[in-house]
Amino acid sequence: MKMTPVKGTADYLPRQTLLRDYLQQVILETYRSAGFERILTPAIEDLENLEKSDGGDNLNLMFKIMKRGDKLSAALENGEPLADLGLRYDLTLPLSRFYAANRAKLGSPFKCIQIDKSYRAERPQKGRMREFVQCDIDILGSESPLCELELIHTTAAALKKLAIGSFTVRVNDRRVLRSVLGRLGIPEEKMDTVCVSLDKWDKIGTSGVLEELSAKEISAESCEALRELLDGGCTLEQASALCDDQESLARLTRLLEDASSLAEGYQVAFDLLLIRGQGYYTGTVFEIQSDKFKGSVAGGGRYDGLVGKFTGEQVPAVGFSIGFERIFQILEGQQFEVPSRPKRVAVLCDETDAAGAIRRAETLRADGMEASVFLRPKKLGKFLGRLEEQGFDGFLPAEPDSELRWFGQ
Amino acid sequence: MKMTPVKGTADYLPRQTLLRDYLQQVILETYRSAGFERILTPAIEDLENLEKSDGGDNLNLMFKIMKRGDKLSAALENGEPLADLGLRYDLTLPLSRFYAANRAKLGSPFKCIQIDKSYRAERPQKGRMREFVQCDIDILGSESPLCELELIHTTAAALKKLAIGSFTVRVNDRRVLRSVLGRLGIPEEKMDTVCVSLDKWDKIGTSGVLEELSAKEISAESCEALRELLDGGCTLEQASALCDDQESLARLTRLLEDASSLAEGYQVAFDLLLIRGQGYYTGTVFEIQSDKFKGSVAGGGRYDGLVGKFTGEQVPAVGFSIGFERIFQILEGQQFEVPSRPKRVAVLCDETDAAGAIRRAETLRADGMEASVFLRPKKLGKFLGRLEEQGFDGFLPAEPDSELRWFGQ
Repeated sequence: MKMTPVKGTADYLPRQTLLRDYLQQVILETYRSAGFERILTPAIEDLENLEKSDGGDNLNLMFKIMKRGDKLSAALENGEPLADLGLRYDLTLPLSRFYAANRAKLGSPFKCIQIDKSYRAERPQKGRMREFVQCDIDILGSESPLCELELIHTTAAALKKLAIGSFTVRVNDRRVLRSVLGRLGIPEEKMDTVCVSLDKWDKIGTSGVLEELSAKEISAESCEALRELLDGGCTLEQASALCDDQESLARLTRLLEDASSLAEGYQVAFDLLLIRGQGYYTGTVFEIQSDKFKGSVAGGGRYDGLVGKFTGEQVPAVGFSIGFERIFQILEGQQFEVPSRPKRVAVLCDETDAAGAIRRAETLRADGMEASVFLRPKKLGKFLGRLEEQGFDGFLPAEPDSELRWFGQ
Repeated sequence: MKMTPVKGTADYLPRQTLLRDYLQQVILETYRSAGFERILTPAIEDLENLEKSDGGDNLNLMFKIMKRGDKLSAALENGEPLADLGLRYDLTLPLSRFYAANRAKLGSPFKCIQIDKSYRAERPQKGRMREFVQCDIDILGSESPLCELELIHTTAAALKKLAIGSFTVRVNDRRVLRSVLGRLGIPEEKMDTVCVSLDKWDKIGTSGVLEELSAKEISAESCEALRELLDGGCTLEQASALCDDQESLARLTRLLEDASSLAEGYQVAFDLLLIRGQGYYTGTVFEIQSDKFKGSVAGGGRYDGLVGKFTGEQVPAVGFSIGFERIFQILEGQQFEVPSRPKRVAVLCDETDAAGAIRRAETLRADGMEASVFLRPKKLGKFLGRLEEQGFDGFLPAEPDSELRWFGQ
C-alpha cells in the first residue's frame, strides 16, 4: 500500500495543523467581527451545475466522481457520461446554489463566510495544491460599491493580523478595461482573447503581449495604441482618458479613493491589466499581492450573473477569497509559532494505577493545562528527553503525591 | 441548474453552522486538553489503499474518482479500472497511512485527533449523511489497556460537555466473543457469519438470530447453547464462564472496572453482542448509545493490524470516533443555542459615507461586537424589523454622532 498522500494533497503534522487551525481561527474571527456569517456547503456538487458555471480553465481541472451500480452499467452500455458528480473547484458556485435555494431565510444583503476545501487537478507547485482551503467572504443582494469596499477592508484586516508582511490590493473593473480596449479598436468578439494575452503581461512583457496580439490578427494600429498604454504604465489617468463607460469609471475611482483612505499598513492600487480567469466575473475584480509570495494570495470580484443561473433572476454578488495554502506556506516558511498555547504536561503512571493517573490529569486540565497520561517506561530519561523535544513543558512523576516538574529547570 | 445539494449532503445555514463550529470547538478543546494532537489528512486517497483496507461494507459504498485525460482513454481502451482515487470512507485508514509515513516525527505513543469529513454512498437517513464529519481520537504505538481507558474517558468527557443527555458506553472484546463462540461449538470458519447475525440481535431478537443461524447450518446444539446465553442476558459472568482466552478476559474485566470507576454522569456496560462492522478491529470494541438517538453516537476499537499493512511491521492502535452528524442532529433538534455570543449590531450609512461607516464599525469591533455595515434603506422600519429577526441586537443610525440603539428597549 502507498504511504505517501495522493499527488497534490498533503498530510499535516501536529505542529502544522496547530498553525493551520490558528490561522483559520484568526480569519474566521475577523470575518465574524465584521458581521459576516459562516455557512457550509458540500464538497460534492452535481456535475452539470459545475460544468455550466463559467468556471473558465477550472472546468478542465475537475475531479469527477463515477456513477455507481446500475447507473454506471447503463452509462457504459449506452455511451453516456460515466460521472454525475464532481468535487467543487471553488466555493463561489456552491454559494450561488446555496443562495438560490435558501434566500428567503437569509439576510438581505447576505454577508457570508466560507472556509473550506476545494479541488483542482492542477500541476502542484509551491502554495498550489490539488486539495486546498479557501477563505471567502461574499456579499449577495446588493449592487452598492460599499460591498467592494467592505470586502477589501475586511480581507486586508484579516491578512494584517496574520503578519504576512506588506501587501498590495490591486483593483480593476472589467467594464472599464473593455471600454478602453474598445476605444483602442479591439473588436467585441476579440476582447476575451486579448484579455488572455494582457493577463500574461507580467510574465512575457509588452513585446510578448504584442507578439501574441499580432498572431491573433489584432490590427497594427490597435497594437501601437496598446503599446503606448503599456509603456505609460496603464495609469488611472490614461484609463480615464480612454474610457467611455463613465459610470463604471466613477465607481472604480471612488472605490480606489475610499479603500486607500481606509488602508493602514498596506497599499491599494489600480491595475488595468488585472483580469482574473473566471468567466463569471462581471465588474470589479481585485487581487492581493504579498512581497513574500510570487503570485496572488487573495482574489475576487463581482459576479452579478451566477445566482441568476439558478433562479432566472439576476442577483448582484461580489466576493473575495484568500488562498489559504499560500498564507500557510508563507508563515510555515518563517517558522511562525502559534501564540499563547496552554502548558503541556505528561502524567506518568504504572499499568495498575491508570484510573488514578487519569484523575490526577483531570486536576491539571481543570487548571488549564494539556495533560497527557503515559505509562512510565523502562528508560525514563530517554522518554522524558523525547517529550521535551515534542514540545512538552513538564511532567508529573508516577509516584503518588509527586509534584509537577518543569523541563529546563 | 439544480438548487438542492447532492443527495445525502447538506447546506448549513448561518445558525446551523454556528452550532456545528461550536460543537466541534468544544470537542477539539476537550481532546487537546487530554493531550491529544490534531493532524490533517486528505479526503482523497489512493483507491488501492482504500480497497485493501478491510473496511467491510464500507468498501461497497465508496465514491470513486475517475482517471483523467490520457489515463482515462487508455483505461477505457484496455478495459482497465476507470478510477484511481477515492473519497475516504473513514479517518482510520488515512491515519494508518499517515502514521506509517511520518512515525519518526511523531510522539510514541502517538495520541492524535482528527475532525474531518468522510464519504459513504449510504441510503441517507436521520443523522446519516453521505458527506459527514467524524471526530476521532486514536492512540498508536501502545498495547496497554490504558489507551482504551483514556479513549473512553476522553470521548465521554467531550459528550458530557455537549449536553446530549444520558448515555452508555458499551464495551466488548472480539477475542472474548470468539472464545465464547468457540466453546459453544461454532467452527472457526463460521465465526464471522455468526457475528453478522448476532449483530442484528437488537433488531430481530433471539428467535430471529437463531433462525438465521440455522439457515447458516449452525448445529442445533450450538443454537441451543446460544439461546441460553442470549436468554441469560449475555452477562460478564456468563461470558467469563465460557471464555478460554483468560488474558483478553482479564484485560476486558479490568477495563470495565476502571472505566466505570471514572464514569461520572454516564454508564459503562459490558456488551458481548457488540460487534462493529469494520473488518480491521482486532480486540476491544466500544460504542456509545444515547437515549436521544436510535443507534450509536460514537464507536471504535483496537485495530492492531492496519498500520502494518503499510509498514510490514505490526503497530498496536486503537481509536474512538464520534459520529458528529448524530450529535449535531440531537442538539439541532432541541434548539440548542450557542452560549456567550458577542453582541451583533448594524452600522447604517449613506452611499457617500461608506468609509466613515466602516471606521465607526471598527470602533464597535474593537469593543468586542460584531458590527456589520449596511446602506440605509428607504423603508428603515421594515429593515430594522428584519435585522432583529436575523438575531441583531441593535444598530447605529446613519446620522453622524448617533448612539447605538438596542432592539427591544
